[in-house]
Amino acid sequence: MDLATIIGFIAALFIIVAVMVMDGGSPLELVSNPAPILLTIGGSLMATFITTNLKTFLLLPKLVIVAIKEKHFGEAEAIETLARMADKARREGLLALEEESKKIKDPFLQKGIMLVVDGVDPSQVKAILETQIHHMEERHAANYGLFNAAGGFAPTFGIIGTVMGLISVLKELDNPAKLAESIAAAFLATLWGLLSSNLIFLPIGAKLKTKDAHESAYRNLLLEGILSLQAGENPRIVREKLQAFLPPAAVAKADAKADSKNTEKGKAPA
Amino acid sequence: MDLATIIGFIAALFIIVAVMVMDGGSPLELVSNPAPILLTIGGSLMATFITTNLKTFLLLPKLVIVAIKEKHFGEAEAIETLARMADKARREGLLALEEESKKIKDPFLQKGIMLVVDGVDPSQVKAILETQIHHMEERHAANYGLFNAAGGFAPTFGIIGTVMGLISVLKELDNPAKLAESIAAAFLATLWGLLSSNLIFLPIGAKLKTKDAHESAYRNLLLEGILSLQAGENPRIVREKLQAFLPPAAVAKADAKADSKNTEKGKAPA
Amino acid sequence: MDLATIIGFIAALFIIVAVMVMDGGSPLELVSNPAPILLTIGGSLMATFITTNLKTFLLLPKLVIVAIKEKHFGEAEAIETLARMADKARREGLLALEEESKKIKDPFLQKGIMLVVDGVDPSQVKAILETQIHHMEERHAANYGLFNAAGGFAPTFGIIGTVMGLISVLKELDNPAKLAESIAAAFLATLWGLLSSNLIFLPIGAKLKTKDAHESAYRNLLLEGILSLQAGENPRIVREKLQAFLPPAAVAKADAKADSKNTEKGKAPA
Amino acid sequence: MDLATIIGFIAALFIIVAVMVMDGGSPLELVSNPAPILLTIGGSLMATFITTNLKTFLLLPKLVIVAIKEKHFGEAEAIETLARMADKARREGLLALEEESKKIKDPFLQKGIMLVVDGVDPSQVKAILETQIHHMEERHAANYGLFNAAGGFAPTFGIIGTVMGLISVLKELDNPAKLAESIAAAFLATLWGLLSSNLIFLPIGAKLKTKDAHESAYRNLLLEGILSLQAGENPRIVREKLQAFLPPAAVAKADAKADSKNTEKGKAPA
Amino acid sequence: MDLATIIGFIAALFIIVAVMVMDGGSPLELVSNPAPILLTIGGSLMATFITTNLKTFLLLPKLVIVAIKEKHFGEAEAIETLARMADKARREGLLALEEESKKIKDPFLQKGIMLVVDGVDPSQVKAILETQIHHMEERHAANYGLFNAAGGFAPTFGIIGTVMGLISVLKELDNPAKLAESIAAAFLATLWGLLSSNLIFLPIGAKLKTKDAHESAYRNLLLEGILSLQAGENPRIVREKLQAFLPPAAVAKADAKADSKNTEKGKAPA
Repeated sequence: MDLATIIGFIAALFIIVAVMVMDGGSPLELVSNPAPILLTIGGSLMATFITTNLKTFLLLPKLVIVAIKEKHFGEAEAIETLARMADKARREGLLALEEESKKIKDPFLQKGIMLVVDGVDPSQVKAILETQIHHMEERHAANYGLFNAAGGFAPTFGIIGTVMGLISVLKELDNPAKLAESIAAAFLATLWGLLSSNLIFLPIGAKLKTKDAHESAYRNLLLEGILSLQAGENPRIVREKLQAFLPPAAVAKADAKADSKNTEKGKAPA
Repeated sequence: MDLATIIGFIAALFIIVAVMVMDGGSPLELVSNPAPILLTIGGSLMATFITTNLKTFLLLPKLVIVAIKEKHFGEAEAIETLARMADKARREGLLALEEESKKIKDPFLQKGIMLVVDGVDPSQVKAILETQIHHMEERHAANYGLFNAAGGFAPTFGIIGTVMGLISVLKELDNPAKLAESIAAAFLATLWGLLSSNLIFLPIGAKLKTKDAHESAYRNLLLEGILSLQAGENPRIVREKLQAFLPPAAVAKADAKADSKNTEKGKAPA
Repeated sequence: MDLATIIGFIAALFIIVAVMVMDGGSPLELVSNPAPILLTIGGSLMATFITTNLKTFLLLPKLVIVAIKEKHFGEAEAIETLARMADKARREGLLALEEESKKIKDPFLQKGIMLVVDGVDPSQVKAILETQIHHMEERHAANYGLFNAAGGFAPTFGIIGTVMGLISVLKELDNPAKLAESIAAAFLATLWGLLSSNLIFLPIGAKLKTKDAHESAYRNLLLEGILSLQAGENPRIVREKLQAFLPPAAVAKADAKADSKNTEKGKAPA
Repeated sequence: MDLATIIGFIAALFIIVAVMVMDGGSPLELVSNPAPILLTIGGSLMATFITTNLKTFLLLPKLVIVAIKEKHFGEAEAIETLARMADKARREGLLALEEESKKIKDPFLQKGIMLVVDGVDPSQVKAILETQIHHMEERHAANYGLFNAAGGFAPTFGIIGTVMGLISVLKELDNPAKLAESIAAAFLATLWGLLSSNLIFLPIGAKLKTKDAHESAYRNLLLEGILSLQAGENPRIVREKLQAFLPPAAVAKADAKADSKNTEKGKAPA
Repeated sequence: MDLATIIGFIAALFIIVAVMVMDGGSPLELVSNPAPILLTIGGSLMATFITTNLKTFLLLPKLVIVAIKEKHFGEAEAIETLARMADKARREGLLALEEESKKIKDPFLQKGIMLVVDGVDPSQVKAILETQIHHMEERHAANYGLFNAAGGFAPTFGIIGTVMGLISVLKELDNPAKLAESIAAAFLATLWGLLSSNLIFLPIGAKLKTKDAHESAYRNLLLEGILSLQAGENPRIVREKLQAFLPPAAVAKADAKADSKNTEKGKAPA
């Protein structure tokens, strides 16, 4: 589980409830009337539905889970693996990686190594893997775009709800008691539009975008490593190159780890 | 028919009507007054009309149909066709594709194969097909831009209508009974501006953009395949390269299909 | 005359007037008070004036005429001309185009052909013509940017006018009869800000942008043709290449025309 | 002095004052209360100050002067100078430009010619001058970004002022006479926020951006000319190339001038 | 300490307090009610939290310190160092830089020089250092993006708070005394939303962006210098090239400094 998303959402809900109580109201009022919830969440989702197709739209629940679930890419391990394979490839030839490639779990890395083992031309390997990354990014962008679209529609549907409510209110001007209550109900739609947009749709969209950027950087690191390995580059250079993808702190940690590993194996990396 | 667009639109309408009823109003009120509908939809369309020319503007009804109609591109089939042709070209030469090219239904693919068969230089083939894709994208962008423009104008025309209504209202301040009704009528314009923008113009624009992105990706897949085929690449590499355009799930399915087909024909793809 | 701009503007005006009458008001009220018109249109133009220089600002009336006037580029004719010249150049040499170039009316095309005839290096021809297109685009962008700037300022000046009006209103709270009238007058500024922005400034800006995109595409078509011709490419390839700039329907029409012409001349284009 | 900025600002002020008088108010009211002025202009400048550093912030007054001052770049003269130097370089060698370079007033052009005279490699000359242009653009963007930032903050500070004012107003609900006056005062902040943003900050930012675009185009023209000259290109080609940076009208004028000059000197340009 | 940020923030606070007093209110009212502060600042931070992960979110306090702390990059010194090393490398060979590289404090510059000393291929050195700069920029953008996200959420949470407050208010319509107070309290949320966004979140985000742009330019200067040095370029050219990164004033100062240094050492730089 990705704690940030869960904690952030619960803490925000808690703040809303606390402020409602401080204002002398009851948080139950927020959910007492189904109309504004139906209009803002339902309306935004339907407007988003129009912009996409059934298959993509049905991905929404899965995307929410993707946003919540922790995903660990293990850049440091990948750099070690690639540097080790680069070392092996230099000493024993690219074909020696065939055995190794079968044990790789990441399908992208495995495919890349298999293309290298098969003797595919480096420019072709690059083109194939870059196309794969590019289209993964396009698909992800279409996916998180759904949440951004819904987050853009929601406040407007909130306003639509409030205007619809106010129009109804104006017919009861002779009943002041009911009037105030109806105006309050009308504003609930605005509230739900803003809340659903700012606590659900937009943050999930932004979260998915963050995850996509992370995955993209990871795939580019793998691509760079595969190409370096195919070019027969020195494992030390491969490691240097790939560590440039990481923040300085992570590099220091990775170096320490690599050193201890190399010492264990009693062998210098270059 | 593209179910997403139809279902989304009907469901959204249903939600609006349901919320209107829950608010104690009647959905008929929405359409009781023609002025706000004329102003928001008519005004936005006319403001959009100014920005374009008669020919493009008259495309609008056709574009709505494009947005609603399902369009199937069949990437998996195209990959199989291109891999098969690449195989044939390697064994029998590029001229052997002439017969085949006549049976192709997609005019873009057909044109590309015909250029290859005619012995046009690869860089020229690439330039011609890329120009065609680029200008198709430009034309599509101009088209869905019309809906985005209308969707941007509509809420403003809604506000214009409401302000115009409120100005009229202020002349009847001495008639409180009529006053409330007039204010309600004035707000109808805001409502129609928001509804027409968020349920009609913007979603259709976004839908057309989604379709354009899909078609663009498909054309680029064909272009890549045509160039690979002309370069005499191994059919297996051609397939690998083109599958990088697809989501992982589609690749697995395409592979299974290709395998079964090849088994039927009793022949390995490479 | 460009009918779209004229019809669009008149139809939008008609809609505004019709809605005003339906609301029980008189369209004359809109123009009864000069203050809001002066403030929104004058203020926006002056704020735009600050952002530019006298020479560019004085172009405004001319730009309005450019937006209204129909401009025909004749891509199909240009493709025929270029293909014919490519044919001639292949058979009689580039110098044979000198006579032809004098009859060309488009100064851009003429300059390009003259550079080719003068034996200027292809990379130089490309650089010169691309620079010319690029700077034409920059100048056009600066021009339609003026209308977008004015369209951005106008609603704000409308709000400024309304706030100024409301401040004045608050001093007459003891005169309810005058009060309503003054509030109505204050809202006129908002109305004029929105109307001038959405019916004048923004649509003209968008129209000029559309025209610029069209001209830019046309110039790039000419550039591509001139370079192909200089490279001594086959006229059939030249035509194929340039037709990729056009929508499929236009290509079909152009082909039919070219065929009939060629038949008349009794000679195949390649 | 750049008349556009001065005239535009004064005319806009005049319009504001005129509309105030038409509304039956006095323009003095606008400046009667220092609080909204302090809040909107002071607050925006301070929020902008946070985003930058002391050195850049202290440039603000100088930037206002830059925005107001006319700057003449003299593209036509520069093209003549470069074409003349290209002619000399072809006839007498690049070293012959040394004497000439000392008389050049523009430091950018002088530096470029000196690099050429010193025999620096063309790719290095290009890299050095492009870097200089790029970083000039970055610095200018940071500068006019200050005004855009302030222009973005100002309306918000206006709303902050109005909300603060309204909160104070609500404590005096039992004094209707003072109430109206206080509400009017509260709205003054909104007015000042909008006016300072739309008449001062944003137009000056846009003006500086326009000037930067102009200077950038001029520097690129010089760069192109220096490189052409170093490459020993024909002066006629140099002139053709550089004239592609100018609008058609300016080219016609420059040609006429060049012709008359050349006639005086009794010598054709090529 | 970075004076701009501190002074700007304190001055802005002072202005807010002053205007509050001028409006006849007390600045203590702003902090008298914890609900709006909790909602706007807490809510925005939690919505931002959802979009990121725990590790990045916990960087927030450190980022505030980064925004406040002065950071001096010393471009002029770096140019001198690089020009000196280029001179040494030309005279004594690249290996002679090994000793020197150990004394370099900047880890980026040190790594670059070490790669050069190790005889890594120039294209590899460029790729490694560019990757490092690119990923540093990506990380920084993710960081200041947090503040921009929070600054975008804050005003909306302010409106949410005000709407929630107004809904509560409408239940107490029969108590006019309490009514005004409650409305005032409701507007406090809007105020806090705008203030926290415009005085805290957005300015800090913009400040971090400014600092990132500065650091990025500095790293690119170092990269350019390292590559020039490896290419064995003339120290004078190296200095010319790197000074193109600086504003003209800084160049003049740096030149003066370099001259005096060179005079002291009794040796011309080239």
